[in-house]
Amino acid sequence: MLLFREVLGEVLREIRNAQARTLREVSKDAKVSLGYLSEIERGQKEASSELLAAICEALDVPQANVLMLVSERFAEAEGLPAAFPDVVPSHLAEDVYSAL
Amino acid sequence: MLLFREVLGEVLREIRNAQARTLREVSKDAKVSLGYLSEIERGQKEASSELLAAICEALDVPQANVLMLVSERFAEAEGLPAAFPDVVPSHLAEDVYSAL
Repeated sequence: MLLFREVLGEVLREIRNAQARTLREVSKDAKVSLGYLSEIERGQKEASSELLAAICEALDVPQANVLMLVSERFAEAEGLPAAFPDVVPSHLAEDVYSAL
Repeated sequence: MLLFREVLGEVLREIRNAQARTLREVSKDAKVSLGYLSEIERGQKEASSELLAAICEALDVPQANVLMLVSERFAEAEGLPAAFPDVVPSHLAEDVYSAL
C-alpha cells in the first residue's frame, strides 16, 4: 500500500534536487532541522500541514503543484485509467520544473 | 495560508456526504474512532498516512482522486493560472463523484 508521506517525500526530494539545493539550504529556509527534513524526504516522518507549507515555500513551489505530483504517482500506482495520469503529470511537471 | 489538513478534511467530508454515509459508518469501516474522524474532517487533527489510506478505502475512493481534489483547491486558493485548475477539477470531480 502506497503511503502519502513516502510519495510526498520522494516528490519534495526531486524538486530540491532539480533546484540543485542542499538539505541544509532548504532546511534553513523552511526553519526545520536538517535531520527532520531528511526524514520527511525519506518518508520516515509525517510532515505537519504547517511544515509542508513551509517546505513548499522554501522550495518556492505552490503546494498545489506538489500535491498534484503526489496525486499523479498515486494514480499510477493505483492503476487509474490512463486518461487520468496522462492529462495531469506532463502538465504539472512542466509547471513545477520549468520554473526552477 | 491554506493548510493541507483543512482542505483534506473538507474533501473527505464532501465525499462522505455525497455517499450519504454517517461518520459512524465510515469510522467503523476505517477502524478509527468517530471523534477522531470528525476532527480530521474539521481539519483539527492531522491524519497519518496509514489513516488517510484507511479512510479512502472505507470511502472506496482512490487516494489519487482525493489528493487531486485537494490539489485543485490549493490551485484555486494559490491563484495558479486558470489553465491549471481548469484542466484538472472537472475531470477529477467526475472520477470521484460519478463512482458514488
